[in-house]
Amino acid sequence: MVGGGQGALIGGVHRIAARMDDRFELVAGSFSSQLERNRATARELGVAESRCYADYQALLAGEAERSDGAEVVAIVTPNHLHFPAALACLEAGRHVICEKPMTLSVDEAQQLAAAVEASGKRFVLAHNYVGYPLVQHARELVARGELGRIRSVQVEYLQEWLSEAPGPDNRQAAWRLDPARAGATGCLGDIGVHAFHLAQFICGQRVSEVSAELFNAVPGRELDDNVHALLRFVGGARGMLWASQTAPGFENGLSIRVVGEKASLRWAQESPNELHFSPLDGPAQRLTRRDDRLGADIARGIRIPGGHPEGYLEAFANLYQALSDGLNEGTETPWLPGVEDGVDGMHFIAATLASSRAAGAWTALQGAGGAP
Amino acid sequence: MVGGGQGALIGGVHRIAARMDDRFELVAGSFSSQLERNRATARELGVAESRCYADYQALLAGEAERSDGAEVVAIVTPNHLHFPAALACLEAGRHVICEKPMTLSVDEAQQLAAAVEASGKRFVLAHNYVGYPLVQHARELVARGELGRIRSVQVEYLQEWLSEAPGPDNRQAAWRLDPARAGATGCLGDIGVHAFHLAQFICGQRVSEVSAELFNAVPGRELDDNVHALLRFVGGARGMLWASQTAPGFENGLSIRVVGEKASLRWAQESPNELHFSPLDGPAQRLTRRDDRLGADIARGIRIPGGHPEGYLEAFANLYQALSDGLNEGTETPWLPGVEDGVDGMHFIAATLASSRAAGAWTALQGAGGAP
Amino acid sequence: MVGGGQGALIGGVHRIAARMDDRFELVAGSFSSQLERNRATARELGVAESRCYADYQALLAGEAERSDGAEVVAIVTPNHLHFPAALACLEAGRHVICEKPMTLSVDEAQQLAAAVEASGKRFVLAHNYVGYPLVQHARELVARGELGRIRSVQVEYLQEWLSEAPGPDNRQAAWRLDPARAGATGCLGDIGVHAFHLAQFICGQRVSEVSAELFNAVPGRELDDNVHALLRFVGGARGMLWASQTAPGFENGLSIRVVGEKASLRWAQESPNELHFSPLDGPAQRLTRRDDRLGADIARGIRIPGGHPEGYLEAFANLYQALSDGLNEGTETPWLPGVEDGVDGMHFIAATLASSRAAGAWTALQGAGGAP
Amino acid sequence: MVGGGQGALIGGVHRIAARMDDRFELVAGSFSSQLERNRATARELGVAESRCYADYQALLAGEAERSDGAEVVAIVTPNHLHFPAALACLEAGRHVICEKPMTLSVDEAQQLAAAVEASGKRFVLAHNYVGYPLVQHARELVARGELGRIRSVQVEYLQEWLSEAPGPDNRQAAWRLDPARAGATGCLGDIGVHAFHLAQFICGQRVSEVSAELFNAVPGRELDDNVHALLRFVGGARGMLWASQTAPGFENGLSIRVVGEKASLRWAQESPNELHFSPLDGPAQRLTRRDDRLGADIARGIRIPGGHPEGYLEAFANLYQALSDGLNEGTETPWLPGVEDGVDGMHFIAATLASSRAAGAWTALQGAGGAP
Repeated sequence: MVGGGQGALIGGVHRIAARMDDRFELVAGSFSSQLERNRATARELGVAESRCYADYQALLAGEAERSDGAEVVAIVTPNHLHFPAALACLEAGRHVICEKPMTLSVDEAQQLAAAVEASGKRFVLAHNYVGYPLVQHARELVARGELGRIRSVQVEYLQEWLSEAPGPDNRQAAWRLDPARAGATGCLGDIGVHAFHLAQFICGQRVSEVSAELFNAVPGRELDDNVHALLRFVGGARGMLWASQTAPGFENGLSIRVVGEKASLRWAQESPNELHFSPLDGPAQRLTRRDDRLGADIARGIRIPGGHPEGYLEAFANLYQALSDGLNEGTETPWLPGVEDGVDGMHFIAATLASSRAAGAWTALQGAGGAP
Repeated sequence: MVGGGQGALIGGVHRIAARMDDRFELVAGSFSSQLERNRATARELGVAESRCYADYQALLAGEAERSDGAEVVAIVTPNHLHFPAALACLEAGRHVICEKPMTLSVDEAQQLAAAVEASGKRFVLAHNYVGYPLVQHARELVARGELGRIRSVQVEYLQEWLSEAPGPDNRQAAWRLDPARAGATGCLGDIGVHAFHLAQFICGQRVSEVSAELFNAVPGRELDDNVHALLRFVGGARGMLWASQTAPGFENGLSIRVVGEKASLRWAQESPNELHFSPLDGPAQRLTRRDDRLGADIARGIRIPGGHPEGYLEAFANLYQALSDGLNEGTETPWLPGVEDGVDGMHFIAATLASSRAAGAWTALQGAGGAP
Repeated sequence: MVGGGQGALIGGVHRIAARMDDRFELVAGSFSSQLERNRATARELGVAESRCYADYQALLAGEAERSDGAEVVAIVTPNHLHFPAALACLEAGRHVICEKPMTLSVDEAQQLAAAVEASGKRFVLAHNYVGYPLVQHARELVARGELGRIRSVQVEYLQEWLSEAPGPDNRQAAWRLDPARAGATGCLGDIGVHAFHLAQFICGQRVSEVSAELFNAVPGRELDDNVHALLRFVGGARGMLWASQTAPGFENGLSIRVVGEKASLRWAQESPNELHFSPLDGPAQRLTRRDDRLGADIARGIRIPGGHPEGYLEAFANLYQALSDGLNEGTETPWLPGVEDGVDGMHFIAATLASSRAAGAWTALQGAGGAP
Repeated sequence: MVGGGQGALIGGVHRIAARMDDRFELVAGSFSSQLERNRATARELGVAESRCYADYQALLAGEAERSDGAEVVAIVTPNHLHFPAALACLEAGRHVICEKPMTLSVDEAQQLAAAVEASGKRFVLAHNYVGYPLVQHARELVARGELGRIRSVQVEYLQEWLSEAPGPDNRQAAWRLDPARAGATGCLGDIGVHAFHLAQFICGQRVSEVSAELFNAVPGRELDDNVHALLRFVGGARGMLWASQTAPGFENGLSIRVVGEKASLRWAQESPNELHFSPLDGPAQRLTRRDDRLGADIARGIRIPGGHPEGYLEAFANLYQALSDGLNEGTETPWLPGVEDGVDGMHFIAATLASSRAAGAWTALQGAGGAP
């Protein structure tokens, strides 16, 4: 693991997720650039002192010397380190599971895609929300044609935790609001890109153009904390995307509605064990996470019966499970987010920034395959 | 009443609404341009044959000759007749309650505003959704500062009934899809303008600019059936507006969310007896329609205790009740929609059409008081 | 109208309900035993002074002398007057719509049933909640066999308004807590009997036995304010009934769940425009109040399309509408509650009181047709 | 681990729960009485062949010979083995975490309580639902007096999975419907006792008496599949308990409502991340699982921020976490279910069976401290 020292949030999540199905063991890490924090974290996690490294370079060098060196590296640092660390890992022949946004620029993203290709190693991007079984089922409903042609996609990701200027001890907030570590965007890169990925994932269409307005609700911030955007998809669907980190009352409100000619569906991350499907010609249905009603591929990621709620950690663990399946069985899990999703995400960020600066002009996502 | 013949929907709604509190009596009408339908409607409604008129001109002329002539005229025709009928009524010294959209153009709207001013008569625009007590309370919460400065307003109005090409007998659909009777817009003028009004109403801020994309989900239609729009408000708030009449699973899905710096609120027309208020510093609250917890002005429009659901007809009746109060008591009901709301609505329609034609360029609403 | 003077609640509800469809006119009344209140009410309601009577006897005598005397009498008094007033009305040849509980005893109920029979007049008991279209549809789903054999029925009616000792000005509370006017029960007769009626209505089975515990949550009350009961139905179903008027947070929480061998359903009065149907072999469905999906008989009581909420007043108005239909067309509306429902209700009250006094012993409802 | 062979459900749950926080390692087991299944399970779980034992006696004997023998034994067998296995473990000086119902009789339960006392070892009973942070918070709200005196407790536990006669391959169903392995009750002992425990847990009052009716919805079963019961609590509260395993549409519907004189609360296991609190004098509140708003003891069991759903596995893991805390820190976790809860549960089962056989006569729970 690179990153994830004491006080970090997402590192702990990765560790639980990796442990859930007993497929991974945490053997080495570079948890923090601060020496003491690094060591203390290793001790707490039971990682041998000899395998607690000062930085990712040292980690890769050290592990390379061992016959039992780490096979997979989880990169859970602030944004600016995703790219160099991931690149180094791939070049060192390690599989990677990396936090989003994948890089700080489209150019880096493309370099990383090339590196994945060249390395022949697995690269998983932590768009964890598609690990929810019912998100995968939503995608399947669309793919099967149950909604007919898609008309409108409404996706939103709302949080309240940056509604006010954060206190000095808020490590999570500190780097996210700092362009040097977060990159050129705040809310857009932190959560907007999750919403973007979810929309593309379920609809099976790539976004071709965006018309956006970024703004700051809290004065004095260098980076956006709100995103209002209109979308156009390659297949002709239209959409709207709303992201905010300054929305009181919303804890982690990622949700999506997809309207098709024959039916609509909606799913919300805070109630992840239900999926609503509303056909034009009959009553609305509430679908639940039941392995006997979902496809076999999806059912792999279901550990307990319907009615026994699974949550964020289980969905996250499904990424690790699928990575492990892929390594063990040599298979590809179609829903597992990879480096191409990261390239798309960086295109989305770039186009959204450009559109917002150009007074909302419709701006193409490079490489998305052209406007509808 | 002008319009509202057999087979019409909204005429019947006006009649029940007017009757609800026993303040109005239906005494005369021109219900249909078709002679037989007109007469049959009058018989069914117990309107004397002598007061069943061929058109609104005849109605105004006939009633003018009576000492007990109608005092208030309800205009419930297709869109293209709103303006001439309302103008004539005002000039004939009648109070008017008129369906939306108020006119077919900004110019007509301004003429009508001048006519109201000149006549000294009451003019009520049937933005009926603000008749719901909890909508009025939402407005009060914002006005009182309970949300702090408004950051984002999300409003939507979704229906499914035009998801497919309507059958030949669907009188409601026929005129709404016909530019000659509906005007230059379909969904935008039919329901988008309700959403616009609700947003301005609750936020107490006028929309200054819009960036929009209108589109047709059902091929072959001359008028839009979907609206995606970004909004800017005079006071600095931003917003998003989504309207659709081709959204399977949505029967009459008007809803709004307002995000402020201190709290958020949300309300949905299909569950009108609850209002959700979520402060940043405490748990979300579910407010109900209880006369002992709402302001005295709002409580006037509450007929039965909390927990006894009131609905669409009661909210609609509140417009008639407030009009009656105004006539009887000489007072103004601050929430009652008037001709200025209609002028704003026509500005919104015009700017949205213009923006959509200009590839989503931010377009100012004339007269809204300038951009933030 | 008998009862319904100023300050009363249910009288005003009856008046709006009767007016909703323009089928009834309020022409005479004995609104209050207090002279001044009686007259003031008449003036407020536009009832001629000459037809404002001191009591129901005077009303019946006065109206009998007129060729245009009232045809239907609404009895909306405290409980103790239901029986004598209804009996007198029937004997005077008037149709009656009467509040519940129908009488103070089984014996009175049986006398009234005989009087209805003898008079040939209509008698409607105001179990208003079955006026909701989706309640009628729920009954139809059961009758059609969509649930299969009924296993368990769970019904509850919860209010909070008597959670504390009421203030001296609370006229609603005063008579309900006074055995002289309310009869031998409080909560049981006031709302428990509504829950009982709803259960029998939807399930199409009569309750055969009850095992109950009545208790007082607020010390010092002479009458019960809470009911806990187990039920057995003639057809073999079992049930549970919970009623309370001391339940903080519940405004008017009447709801029912019916579990059958093939499916379950649930409906709640505070969200009356949706009915949930959950088959064993598929996803749960949310049914809405749409006239195109409900039977023609039920659709009569639907005034506006799905998605436009109808509420308590509309459901109540459906009793008046059905009564009017019956009088005009000479037909019987199968769902309209009549005197037999009142007899059943009084049997239920008697058996529940008896069971509670006998430490919860299973107690048969006389006349219900025997235990399963 | 004793039990939990391939095809079992709850064993896998225990293993994930134990692993969640990296506090336990699975080192030995007797997973099945079938030799092959036992060995295959061990291989799958990475348990050394030498520590895969034929039965719990062999396991205790084998582990006793090792210096690194297992410290804690999880007992996840069918009901009839809970008691002998737990007793043997305690006598062998092992800590125990045991599935419910704890034993097959009150007598066994009391013997086990004595054995726990004598052994000085920890005994955790897997009433896993109290591991949910918001269930613990609900208990705290009651204990703090936020609800005032408790008036009524409504608890239910509904499942659909035994709605029909199960297929021959359903191992879960097979033993639960077999008196030799399940004991004298079906639904009552399997899930009714969870509901009972939850009610006592949140209310902080023991049940003193029960009046019950057990019945079978599916003909031919030897054991009950439905429970209808009225409750009385030592502190004067009354309650109702409904449990069913034949309720179509209910997957794992454990829920509770507590009505107090000042407020009510409700919680449902299928939406475990919200707790509804409704005070008499203000709007209903939706509380969420946020470590900054819950007590420090409760916050220990929160792994991720509010809005990131936690579910069944996390709640279950909280039992293991608390056990580990207790072992490491020598402390007692007040909410952790122990042997006394098991004794209470067996009293409840015995009294409910007795009451049902005695036509619902109120029947005291021995040892509960007397009637109110």
